[in-house]
Amino acid sequence: MIILGFDPGIAIVGFGVIKKQGNLVRPLQYGSINTKAGLETGIRLKQIYDATKEIINTYKPDAVSIEKLYFNKNVTTAMTVGQARGILMLAAVEANLPIYEYTPLQVKQALVGYGRAEKKQIQEMVKMYLNLKEIPKPDDVADALAIAICHAHSVKMTNIIKENLL
Amino acid sequence: MIILGFDPGIAIVGFGVIKKQGNLVRPLQYGSINTKAGLETGIRLKQIYDATKEIINTYKPDAVSIEKLYFNKNVTTAMTVGQARGILMLAAVEANLPIYEYTPLQVKQALVGYGRAEKKQIQEMVKMYLNLKEIPKPDDVADALAIAICHAHSVKMTNIIKENLL
Repeated sequence: MIILGFDPGIAIVGFGVIKKQGNLVRPLQYGSINTKAGLETGIRLKQIYDATKEIINTYKPDAVSIEKLYFNKNVTTAMTVGQARGILMLAAVEANLPIYEYTPLQVKQALVGYGRAEKKQIQEMVKMYLNLKEIPKPDDVADALAIAICHAHSVKMTNIIKENLL
Repeated sequence: MIILGFDPGIAIVGFGVIKKQGNLVRPLQYGSINTKAGLETGIRLKQIYDATKEIINTYKPDAVSIEKLYFNKNVTTAMTVGQARGILMLAAVEANLPIYEYTPLQVKQALVGYGRAEKKQIQEMVKMYLNLKEIPKPDDVADALAIAICHAHSVKMTNIIKENLL
C-alpha cells in the first residue's frame, strides 16, 4: 500500500510518499512543492495543482493522508492554508483516491505514543521509522511524512482490531 | 465587460454574473452552487469545481471578483471557506481569467459609500443597482452580486482617473 502525505501551504507544500508492506514502512519519495511569493495566489494554486497531479501520476498512491485542522494558527493563515488544502483534495478526488484526515493529536499519538510530544520528537520518529540518515528539511516535509506514517499506523490498528474480532 | 462575483463556502457558493456597459450594470445570472453536508469534503470541492467551470463556460466572464478576507470568522470556518475559495480561484486561472480581490470595507464603500454600512443596506443597493424586484436569496447570492458590482465600480473609477490624467 502506497500512502501520500501532505502538509499544505501556499509557499511550501510538503509531501511524503511511503510504502507500507506488512508492518514495515519505507520512503519512496519526499520533498516540497514551492511557489514564489511575488506571484498571484491563483497562479500559485495552479502550480500546486499541477505539481500534485504529477506526484500522484508518478507514485500512484492508494490513499492520501492530510492533517485535519490547524487549531493554533490565525484566521488569515487558516484561510491561506485552506486554499492550498482544497487544491490538494481536489487533485486526490480527481484521481479517485480516498482522503484520510488526522488531527495533530492523532499524529503525535501514532508516532510517539502520546499527544503532548514535541515537534522535534515527531521528526526523530519519522527519521527512525523510515530509516533515514537525517531529519528531512524543511519541517513541512517531515510533517508530510509524519501524517503518511500516521495513516499507515491507523491501517495497521484497524487490521489488528479486525483480526481480534474474527 | 462581464464580471463574475463569488461568495465562497463549502455548503453554498453564491455567484453573480453581471454585464457592465458604460455606467450601467445589469444581471445576466445569479444563484448558488450547493453541496450536501453528508458528503466527503473532497467530493464537495469537486462538485464546486465542476459547477464553477460550467458557469465560466456558459457566461464567459472577462474577470472574477471575490472577497479578500473574512476577518470576523473563526479559524475552522476560515479554513473551510479557504478550501472552496482555492477551488474557485483555480477554475478562474485555468480559464485565464484575472481575479480581483476586495475587502469587505471596499465592497461597502463601493455600494453604499461608507465602510460601516449594514448587510441589509448592501443588499438594498444590490437590488437597486441591478433593478431587481427583490433581494436575491440566500445572502450568499446577494453578497456575490455585491462583490461583482464592487469590481464594476472599481473599473469605472480607474477609467475616470485615467481620463483625468490625459
